Amino acid sequence: MPSKPRAVTLADIARLANTTTPTVSKVLNGKPGVSDETRSLVEATIQKTGYQPRATRRQTAPLIEVLCYEIDSPFGSEVVAHIEQASRQGGFGMVLTGANADNLPHPGWVDDVVSRQPVGVVLIACRLPEADRKRLRSRDIRIVAIDPAGTPAPDIPSIGSADWKGGYLATRHLIDLGHRRIGIITGPADMMASAARQSGYTAALEAAGIPIEPSLIRPGQFHHADGLAEGLTLLSRPDRPTAIFASSDLYALGVYEAARSLGIDIPDQLSVVGYDDLRIAQWAGPPLTTVHVPLARMAQDAVHMIQRLGGEPELSSSRTDIETTLVIRASTTVPTKVSK
Amino acid sequence: MPSKPRAVTLADIARLANTTTPTVSKVLNGKPGVSDETRSLVEATIQKTGYQPRATRRQTAPLIEVLCYEIDSPFGSEVVAHIEQASRQGGFGMVLTGANADNLPHPGWVDDVVSRQPVGVVLIACRLPEADRKRLRSRDIRIVAIDPAGTPAPDIPSIGSADWKGGYLATRHLIDLGHRRIGIITGPADMMASAARQSGYTAALEAAGIPIEPSLIRPGQFHHADGLAEGLTLLSRPDRPTAIFASSDLYALGVYEAARSLGIDIPDQLSVVGYDDLRIAQWAGPPLTTVHVPLARMAQDAVHMIQRLGGEPELSSSRTDIETTLVIRASTTVPTKVSK
Repeated sequence: MPSKPRAVTLADIARLANTTTPTVSKVLNGKPGVSDETRSLVEATIQKTGYQPRATRRQTAPLIEVLCYEIDSPFGSEVVAHIEQASRQGGFGMVLTGANADNLPHPGWVDDVVSRQPVGVVLIACRLPEADRKRLRSRDIRIVAIDPAGTPAPDIPSIGSADWKGGYLATRHLIDLGHRRIGIITGPADMMASAARQSGYTAALEAAGIPIEPSLIRPGQFHHADGLAEGLTLLSRPDRPTAIFASSDLYALGVYEAARSLGIDIPDQLSVVGYDDLRIAQWAGPPLTTVHVPLARMAQDAVHMIQRLGGEPELSSSRTDIETTLVIRASTTVPTKVSK
Repeated sequence: MPSKPRAVTLADIARLANTTTPTVSKVLNGKPGVSDETRSLVEATIQKTGYQPRATRRQTAPLIEVLCYEIDSPFGSEVVAHIEQASRQGGFGMVLTGANADNLPHPGWVDDVVSRQPVGVVLIACRLPEADRKRLRSRDIRIVAIDPAGTPAPDIPSIGSADWKGGYLATRHLIDLGHRRIGIITGPADMMASAARQSGYTAALEAAGIPIEPSLIRPGQFHHADGLAEGLTLLSRPDRPTAIFASSDLYALGVYEAARSLGIDIPDQLSVVGYDDLRIAQWAGPPLTTVHVPLARMAQDAVHMIQRLGGEPELSSSRTDIETTLVIRASTTVPTKVSK
């Protein structure tokens, strides 16, 4: 950005973009009645000049926008609840919008956000096209990502948890119990959090001198159906694993169902470790041993980051990882009762 | 309301309340800088005159406010997700706020709502004090309730499902399988939905000539812990029931855990029927037979009601009940394997 953004006025932008001040205002506020061509030109000029429309920020109760990948997923809904609480305590209203199946915003979302003039945007397991990021930046709307989907954008600070350590702790717990054949159901390969969990799994096995068996590493998209399907695949093998590290609680419930349908008892014949420590982990039968992810803390940090960054001229890229811990419940035990 | 609300101006209200037009404007827009006394007087005058501030409605992307009892509960999060989708399709942004433990808004909520000028408010299993309802009405902000908590307010249209029928279908299904000792875990007695479910249970037993046994009717607050505690109470009896109608899916998961801890197999030794048909019902082991509540339809109707009512001068109280159906999965069977 240029060194003196405050000097730029609406009139400057109108002149540079060869249009009128009211038209620039319409573009700034996401209003209709501007041709695509003019809008693009004005957008480019706003970004080029680093125009900062702080003085026009609405004076009503301030808003934080949340874009969430699956609002009604156990993970999404718990993070949203924590952000709502942190926002409320900070004096913000929270506007919540669901993303599309690719974890991207629906068409028109960024226009609506611009028109609502929030203080900031929190992305939950979502990503934004570069054009949207630029538009938000040009309006001084800050962006923070929680567990970003895909490769994290270099210019968005993100908050996650210690995924590698979580994967390591989960696997190490199973090894300590005596398990040697340990399967894993991983998340999307392009998601940093899932890659880190898998890497923790691999490191724990290697540290114990247990060879990595690629056929025990199964893919998924963090859905219950993946846990069920991959659980069936793993448990139908004659040399089935005695333990599965399901790298999400929802996977673990799918594995439970696979085991139930095959008549395999948890934990006596199969140990299962989940990931996230959502409330469904406590409600599972048996209650699930899992990696606790501090969602409340992550949500608070996201909101605080938006508040703290509010007055600063420029964002620096950063990544905050919050500590994970293992919560041992009833789904893991020694592998004594399996003959193999 | 009076017959010609359009005739009233800000200046009229200022004159009647013995204050200035800017002060009235501050009160209308939820801004600070007005004494409590003056604010009360202006509020009363606004309500008395039926002032309709339509012309001042904000011109940005319109908002719908949602007040939800427990955002991260399985029920709350699924309803919220459906409202978000219906709002988005209707061109609205959705502001989401959590309620307190009594299903009432936190202090300051109504001020924030007034300052945000939404088109309407959707209450999910919540209620509003009369003063809040009047303030929203005086700003032409419409209110719709989904499954209202407590006794529904007479002046708020509400949307629910056919709870009595659902309770009847669930109990009738168990009777048809051959069960005679059927327990029930009910919701809060002052909540219409739970009272209706219990009444359906009673009616189905009576229709089959089965006497009602009060000790088999257990109370709860729709939490997992109630399902576990009351499940343990029911299943620890020497004359334990062979089936339990858990009047929420979350209760059913608690009953699952109670049965598991007592070594009672579902469905061979205990049939369980839930209520709501949330996604956790499909993820349970075994998958849960339950009453399907059309949450998507209820959410759409709530949003449509706010849109449709937007231009009408007065609300009439109404109650819409949407049809429920029974979804039979793997948690119910004939009671052959219980000796009693």
